[in-house]
Amino acid sequence: MYFRLGIDLGGTTAKIVLLDPNQKIIERGLIMTACQADPTAIIDAVAALCETLRKDRRVSHIGIGVAGVIDIKTGDVSLAPNLGWKNIPLRALLSKKLRRPVIVENDATAAALGIYQTQIPKYIKDVIVVTLGTGVGGGVILNGQIHRGRDGTAGEIGHMIIVEHGRPCSCGQRGCLEAYVGGRQIVKMVKEEIKKGRTSLLKPLYLKSPDLITPQKIAEAAKRGDPVAKNIWTNFGHTLGLALQNLIYLLNPGMIYLTGGIAQAGTLILKPLKETLRTGSIKEPLESVQIRIAQKPEFIGAFGAALL
Amino acid sequence: MYFRLGIDLGGTTAKIVLLDPNQKIIERGLIMTACQADPTAIIDAVAALCETLRKDRRVSHIGIGVAGVIDIKTGDVSLAPNLGWKNIPLRALLSKKLRRPVIVENDATAAALGIYQTQIPKYIKDVIVVTLGTGVGGGVILNGQIHRGRDGTAGEIGHMIIVEHGRPCSCGQRGCLEAYVGGRQIVKMVKEEIKKGRTSLLKPLYLKSPDLITPQKIAEAAKRGDPVAKNIWTNFGHTLGLALQNLIYLLNPGMIYLTGGIAQAGTLILKPLKETLRTGSIKEPLESVQIRIAQKPEFIGAFGAALL
Repeated sequence: MYFRLGIDLGGTTAKIVLLDPNQKIIERGLIMTACQADPTAIIDAVAALCETLRKDRRVSHIGIGVAGVIDIKTGDVSLAPNLGWKNIPLRALLSKKLRRPVIVENDATAAALGIYQTQIPKYIKDVIVVTLGTGVGGGVILNGQIHRGRDGTAGEIGHMIIVEHGRPCSCGQRGCLEAYVGGRQIVKMVKEEIKKGRTSLLKPLYLKSPDLITPQKIAEAAKRGDPVAKNIWTNFGHTLGLALQNLIYLLNPGMIYLTGGIAQAGTLILKPLKETLRTGSIKEPLESVQIRIAQKPEFIGAFGAALL
Repeated sequence: MYFRLGIDLGGTTAKIVLLDPNQKIIERGLIMTACQADPTAIIDAVAALCETLRKDRRVSHIGIGVAGVIDIKTGDVSLAPNLGWKNIPLRALLSKKLRRPVIVENDATAAALGIYQTQIPKYIKDVIVVTLGTGVGGGVILNGQIHRGRDGTAGEIGHMIIVEHGRPCSCGQRGCLEAYVGGRQIVKMVKEEIKKGRTSLLKPLYLKSPDLITPQKIAEAAKRGDPVAKNIWTNFGHTLGLALQNLIYLLNPGMIYLTGGIAQAGTLILKPLKETLRTGSIKEPLESVQIRIAQKPEFIGAFGAALL
């Protein structure tokens, strides 16, 4: 009876779960990755925590979802802007350290797999999972199957261009969806507003240390009526709505499922998002799609990775 | 041994083919639809031409692809802006007239079916067919199957919003892809430029009658070096490239296949399109996708409709 390890490696944290042979999470762990510039340091820390969690249990294999573009043939991370990684042979490095087979996948794809298996009614066949975190990812499930595409890179929703010549994105393009709704970007927008002298409940926090501004703090401020924070979420929901409208026109999915830490802003996002969808001209697919926000999505990405 | 009729109903023409039992086209016909304001007149003309083409051959059923949003349960055309149709019970009307079963489908989906069966190497599983005509449509083939989505409306590429608050589109939205690369729209753009006083080889034609400006004439003028016309196609290819980049990021298809009358502008479109794709940040899916332009696509939509 074998156990499985699943890892969700993002721009802020790495989350790790151990599943028992019945696919139940029996151990969890978390590492902060945001301050680690060096890939080796992150990989070492991840491997060490994996060893701690599994103790002496027999692990069949390790699945890892990474916030980036993966070469599925080699298991290399081709590009992970929010980790600052380029061409890192993750599968080779991690399987050598842990002496077990490792499967590397895009983090949003792994999360979509976990979500589809546990959260979505089986009669819904086409689902787009949008992962809202430090960056923005997507997992596309069509006809009940993960759609990976020719090279396994499908689902790069975060780098779809929403505004030509728009805000610069970590990937090098301008106007990507992530440049408007990525966690790092909305924090940056709030700082820009405060620097411009706008009144905000977040200003004292900013003056203490700009690093204390987080998406969670921006959501709290918005709920307390702060105009700068409210405006951030209105624009967030509207821009995400425009992107989703395009996806809905293209794929006519039964459900769109928003997950990741930022999705916990909930109705702050959902209200302007739905208002934007109501303005679309092709009513049928816009009205029929269900839009859900994940409840407690913390370890769903790592869980999905363990299922790979 | 039964024959089949296939109809491709667009904003400018209706094309009809008769297939023999071996799926070979043995009769073709065409009706101009642009000048017909009344749905009944178009349906009557289509039915009459169907009768003429089939003569006394036994027809099992008729497939019709319509440039619009179809309710696949009822066979009604919910919305077809370029025909000026809204809630037309096409299946009921046409099957009553022809006394044969009628299958109604979106025109781009029908074209995609015809193209996939005849033009695409079988090792390519994921193909996006873009129909460039009076309007802009799309057919999405994933894992070798037409992807219709929850309500059968998938593939509405033409109404994906490319420029927020951009050019008005026939559907009522602003900034749709079709508002930049639809046949009717590029003709309008040329007229706008000439009205502004820009020098153009197309000006004498315009002065004779503005209706003489067609996408074909704009392509001919561009090939003869006309700056207004050249600029139209450069922007066309660039804007289509931006839209396709988003589709490539989302679906990582093996091929994008451009069909419809306007696609015959060929390299005028393809050159700026490929230049735009080269500027994208996620190289792998942008470099691996094959982009093809249909050769002689005139009756492929009607052929695909006959296969429905």
